[in-house]
Amino acid sequence: MLVIADNVQANHGAIQKAVQRGDPGPVQSLARRTEAAGARMLDISVGPPGRDGAQKMAFLVEAIQSVTDLPVLIDAADADVMAAGLEANRKTAVHNGFSLEPRKLEAILPLAVRHDTDIIGYLIDERSQPPASLEDRLRIAVELEHAAQSAGLRDESLMIDPFIAPLIWEDGHRRNATLLEVVRRLPEALDRPVKTVVGLSNLTSGRAASDRDRKRTVELAFLPMLAAAGVTMVMLNVFHAEAVRLARACESLLSQKVFAWETL
Amino acid sequence: MLVIADNVQANHGAIQKAVQRGDPGPVQSLARRTEAAGARMLDISVGPPGRDGAQKMAFLVEAIQSVTDLPVLIDAADADVMAAGLEANRKTAVHNGFSLEPRKLEAILPLAVRHDTDIIGYLIDERSQPPASLEDRLRIAVELEHAAQSAGLRDESLMIDPFIAPLIWEDGHRRNATLLEVVRRLPEALDRPVKTVVGLSNLTSGRAASDRDRKRTVELAFLPMLAAAGVTMVMLNVFHAEAVRLARACESLLSQKVFAWETL
Repeated sequence: MLVIADNVQANHGAIQKAVQRGDPGPVQSLARRTEAAGARMLDISVGPPGRDGAQKMAFLVEAIQSVTDLPVLIDAADADVMAAGLEANRKTAVHNGFSLEPRKLEAILPLAVRHDTDIIGYLIDERSQPPASLEDRLRIAVELEHAAQSAGLRDESLMIDPFIAPLIWEDGHRRNATLLEVVRRLPEALDRPVKTVVGLSNLTSGRAASDRDRKRTVELAFLPMLAAAGVTMVMLNVFHAEAVRLARACESLLSQKVFAWETL
Repeated sequence: MLVIADNVQANHGAIQKAVQRGDPGPVQSLARRTEAAGARMLDISVGPPGRDGAQKMAFLVEAIQSVTDLPVLIDAADADVMAAGLEANRKTAVHNGFSLEPRKLEAILPLAVRHDTDIIGYLIDERSQPPASLEDRLRIAVELEHAAQSAGLRDESLMIDPFIAPLIWEDGHRRNATLLEVVRRLPEALDRPVKTVVGLSNLTSGRAASDRDRKRTVELAFLPMLAAAGVTMVMLNVFHAEAVRLARACESLLSQKVFAWETL
């Protein structure tokens, strides 16, 4: 299971300040540290829609690609921000992402075609709601693929984010048990191998930072379940060293090679 | 996933000495500490066949049951030792366990009938070898059930240990990936809900104690995979606090209740 760092977020802390004053130093330092910590890709987000989102995204992509060759995920809900990120890209970028919402299909999806990138489709419905049932989620996966095909993308360009439900929801854990089954069934539903990507921190979103130990434990418990179901990429805080080690151990356990121990 | 402590082993350390001099104190102290650490059952082993095995087992069962009501697993390969453990039992005991080996079927299996206990059947063949394929393992599960029925046990008395392969084996991890599928298929193969129990430390057996960090990480990675596949009981070192916390988190994630977070 390949680890994607979710650490590059332009809407708080030192990175927010660096972006505001146009100083690439702290961003570059963060990118280097995430790579050293085990990140194999970097997700880049400028946070909720706001002024200068496009400019911030372009700044981040340029700053990061000046110090690392890791592929970047342009994580944006607005077409402007997405376009700016994909235009700034000089190495490998992934479009993250689109859904069946009309404005996503019209304005966001075509940007992946124009820039010839892989794209992530979210298993949420036309109104941005995540369905609970296995059948509805598999149906949405098929519809996402049809939409991507209609837009002119090759099937293999489409990766699926099956959407981890927050445990703060009454039925969050049940939805996530179904998610494991969704991931197992996707190759059959789309009739091809399907790359999948999940945002692990969604599991504990809405929980206080003071609950850090419980948040980490439950993330560590869900990570191998995702890996065994067949999830190929997991987005997480790569400075949570235990999670990165665990993702690597999962890869060894599920490897097709011999003597898996040696790869730990 | 219910945690069984594998900490009570009479063949080394302070427990060995206590058993030799007939002092129940250290055994009772250990039993109390395993319970406080989160054990819900205790596996009791006197180690490889040797002199006084039966006497040692009886001593351990009595010492432990004088301080805790936790069910005990009588973990013995010899009929004498098993019989002594089951006779000493005054609370709840599980027979651990039997296989298709002729001497197990003849001498060990009937003890579960005589003492009316649940029993654990191992997915290994007549020559004590673990088969690699899914089909062979499911076939053995069916044969174990037939053997238990013939001996006079109720179907529900039989729990299955699907046998975790050591990663030191060339194909250990592949065998364990198949094991997950075996556990998922057991209810269909036996046409009933099936309780399963695994010995987690088998995964890293044959590895040096100096490799402790890697051993622990790989155990933590496999534990939630087992839980998600449906394993109901896991035997482990309960003083590995992270593993016990993780087992509890798995239970919450896979619970059918609402608001799983609150049970963490």
